[in-house]
Amino acid sequence: MNNKPIGIFDSGVGGLTVASAISEKLPHESITYLGDTMRVPYGTRSPETVCRFAKELTSYLLQNNVKLLVIACNTISALCRDEITKYSRVPVVDVVTPTIRYVASNPTIKRVGVIGTSATIQSGEYERLLKKYRKDINFFSKACPLFVPLVESGFTNHQATKLLIKEYLQPLIHDHIDSLVLACTHYPLLKPLIRTYLGKEVRIIDSAHPTAEAVYEVLNRSDLLNTDSRQPIYRLFFTDLTKQIKTLTSKIWINRKTNVKKVSLTL
Amino acid sequence: MNNKPIGIFDSGVGGLTVASAISEKLPHESITYLGDTMRVPYGTRSPETVCRFAKELTSYLLQNNVKLLVIACNTISALCRDEITKYSRVPVVDVVTPTIRYVASNPTIKRVGVIGTSATIQSGEYERLLKKYRKDINFFSKACPLFVPLVESGFTNHQATKLLIKEYLQPLIHDHIDSLVLACTHYPLLKPLIRTYLGKEVRIIDSAHPTAEAVYEVLNRSDLLNTDSRQPIYRLFFTDLTKQIKTLTSKIWINRKTNVKKVSLTL
Repeated sequence: MNNKPIGIFDSGVGGLTVASAISEKLPHESITYLGDTMRVPYGTRSPETVCRFAKELTSYLLQNNVKLLVIACNTISALCRDEITKYSRVPVVDVVTPTIRYVASNPTIKRVGVIGTSATIQSGEYERLLKKYRKDINFFSKACPLFVPLVESGFTNHQATKLLIKEYLQPLIHDHIDSLVLACTHYPLLKPLIRTYLGKEVRIIDSAHPTAEAVYEVLNRSDLLNTDSRQPIYRLFFTDLTKQIKTLTSKIWINRKTNVKKVSLTL
Repeated sequence: MNNKPIGIFDSGVGGLTVASAISEKLPHESITYLGDTMRVPYGTRSPETVCRFAKELTSYLLQNNVKLLVIACNTISALCRDEITKYSRVPVVDVVTPTIRYVASNPTIKRVGVIGTSATIQSGEYERLLKKYRKDINFFSKACPLFVPLVESGFTNHQATKLLIKEYLQPLIHDHIDSLVLACTHYPLLKPLIRTYLGKEVRIIDSAHPTAEAVYEVLNRSDLLNTDSRQPIYRLFFTDLTKQIKTLTSKIWINRKTNVKKVSLTL
């Protein structure tokens, strides 16, 4: 069991930012990643559609014998974490809960802003969970639906992107946030421009590291850490594969012997 | 047979610009529109995936007893027009062929630029078809993958959109185009900004009107025009339905008694 892979899934390639953090934290673990590039983006779809798609991805990874599931997508985590957890026979780690815990555990955070897809923000899940841990934090949020296409088109350092960052983040600046949560796995690729716009005063938090920590804790607690000293096996599966997807993948997932292939979910 | 609806399909809501032109040209015809909002956008996907999805949409409309099929999507038209035509038992009108014929029939057009999704431009279909009719035209093209998300997010008059129009269209200006084909059904919503950037010298051509003309011709030639004087019935079916989709739909498809609903393709 312990040398089985960790299964990580996302609507597309964004979740690779989480997969990278997990492989850094846990270099002996094999990873099987599944990105639903045939139906990305999820962040503009209805909750029912997102949950139906997410269940199909879960089934696929469970059939591929993973020992743990990581929902490396904020939209899926916010909308159907509980459903997936009930459905799965292996432990499930999502990206929202560890991030919220990380924020809640830091007493210097008083005014937090959360940015994500329309579906994530509309779900209200970040605020609900955060208030469970810390009633005293002021919460502000903003949906940034153009950030995913900007990243996927490679416009991570364009003047238009700077203007859109200003458009979306200005209200949060007016709210005097002290911290900003990047509640979408694509957004870390915009971090340099977001940092420039926000200045040094505002802390930027992404889900990748708190999630990697949570994966380590769950594996350790369940006695599932891999003790096999052989090289881990990395597999990246996508439901559609184009040149653009390959380019973006190699930007995020670097320097590793990896098997990348197109798979069919056989719906 | 003649009072059956025209079936129109697209990856999302963009095809409603074509549906509107058809309903204006043919006010007695009923229309059943199918938008695959559950899997939009198609323009960044592989040809195999686009054709598989398009066939599923075709089957759905054929089961709903349409008398004619309109492929109101440039990406599907460019990638799998022939496949759909072979597959369908009713006549098929696509958006690419009528637009190319319209361009080819105008002798003052000498240097034409075509903009569309990545999949449309990479297919090379516009150039191949155009050269079939007019060997003397100079052809230039540019994929504009961010235009669809900009339109879908409602940024049709934003400074960032102006910058991206400049980014994408500048090379075509350098090529001294005299005409620009908007080879994506979303792009007419950016026409005012594109017009401002291009100036009055460059003609802007969209697919909606040539396609509506072609629909009329095919119905007339096949003796399928509706002669029933009752009010036409409009149905807009979507595979996913969110507030954003409803807002965008009401922007493009105006002032009509219309049945809008979410349908399942039962894959």
